[in-house]
Amino acid sequence: MKERTLDSEEIFKGRLLHVKRDRVAMPDGSEGVREWIDHPGASAVVPVLPGGKVVMVRQFRYGPDRTFLEIPAGKFDGGEAPEAVALRELEEETGYRAGKLEVLGVLYNAVGYSNEAIHVFLGTELVKTEQALDEGEFLEVEIHDLRELIEKAGAGDLQDMKTAAGLLMAGSRMGRARG
Amino acid sequence: MKERTLDSEEIFKGRLLHVKRDRVAMPDGSEGVREWIDHPGASAVVPVLPGGKVVMVRQFRYGPDRTFLEIPAGKFDGGEAPEAVALRELEEETGYRAGKLEVLGVLYNAVGYSNEAIHVFLGTELVKTEQALDEGEFLEVEIHDLRELIEKAGAGDLQDMKTAAGLLMAGSRMGRARG
Repeated sequence: MKERTLDSEEIFKGRLLHVKRDRVAMPDGSEGVREWIDHPGASAVVPVLPGGKVVMVRQFRYGPDRTFLEIPAGKFDGGEAPEAVALRELEEETGYRAGKLEVLGVLYNAVGYSNEAIHVFLGTELVKTEQALDEGEFLEVEIHDLRELIEKAGAGDLQDMKTAAGLLMAGSRMGRARG
Repeated sequence: MKERTLDSEEIFKGRLLHVKRDRVAMPDGSEGVREWIDHPGASAVVPVLPGGKVVMVRQFRYGPDRTFLEIPAGKFDGGEAPEAVALRELEEETGYRAGKLEVLGVLYNAVGYSNEAIHVFLGTELVKTEQALDEGEFLEVEIHDLRELIEKAGAGDLQDMKTAAGLLMAGSRMGRARG
């Protein structure tokens, strides 16, 4: 089913978005065009405090034009390992350092037009440090109950997809751990 | 926390992608730049046959450069209702018509750079009709066990994010229905 690249054109290289348009050979030999975002990847963490509370962030998102309750996350920046990005973004956004990270999954969030993969971790053994937001980053830290969040995600009431998927994978892992 | 649009520039209007760059006023009064994809939205369906089997599609995705096992899905095209898009894409991609659709959730899959919202449905009362793929669309229909898929999604083994989230929301709904 593979599509073979015939040539690739750079459409836009902005501060954030890198847009490409490629001419491709389709599986049946015909020619097609693929417009896509070349993305460095990202990490996200479900950070769980002792007692089953989760450190979440509420953030305004310009494209959707609304706020979302989200798990902490951020983009790769250079050649960092996914774990390093997860730890850095968690600490910068919330002021918590995770002593332990476990992989929940690596999920592609926009397969039709982006190569972005989001590495989703479960973060535990949290220690309070200092929040250090980037310039132009505005968010509020909120502590929520893990069980309630998993229920909300299951009911479709958490509308950021990485957050819903991350919490439901965390819930599934805890269910498996309980046997 | 809202960011106010000062002006909006069209960077690229392709066949698929519509890229914009806006100048915005940040909550603290400073000025920022937001690059984003203006997306019409999409619908996806978890189509469940009697007996707990799911109609899935396997598809090569150019950006990630690999195939994914996915729930059927497609973009809005004009002023259609999300339900209509879900029914159309399910039938075109798999050759099954759903007699019943229930909303599982509306999830934003790339809040940092897109306004895309994916309306995720549970589709039941399926009737076999005819597959009718779009030109340039190549995919294989596969029938899988719902319970196994939900387990795989929970373990991070289904890497398309809408598919993982949709299956886990379906699992959560069935858990609630069982009481």
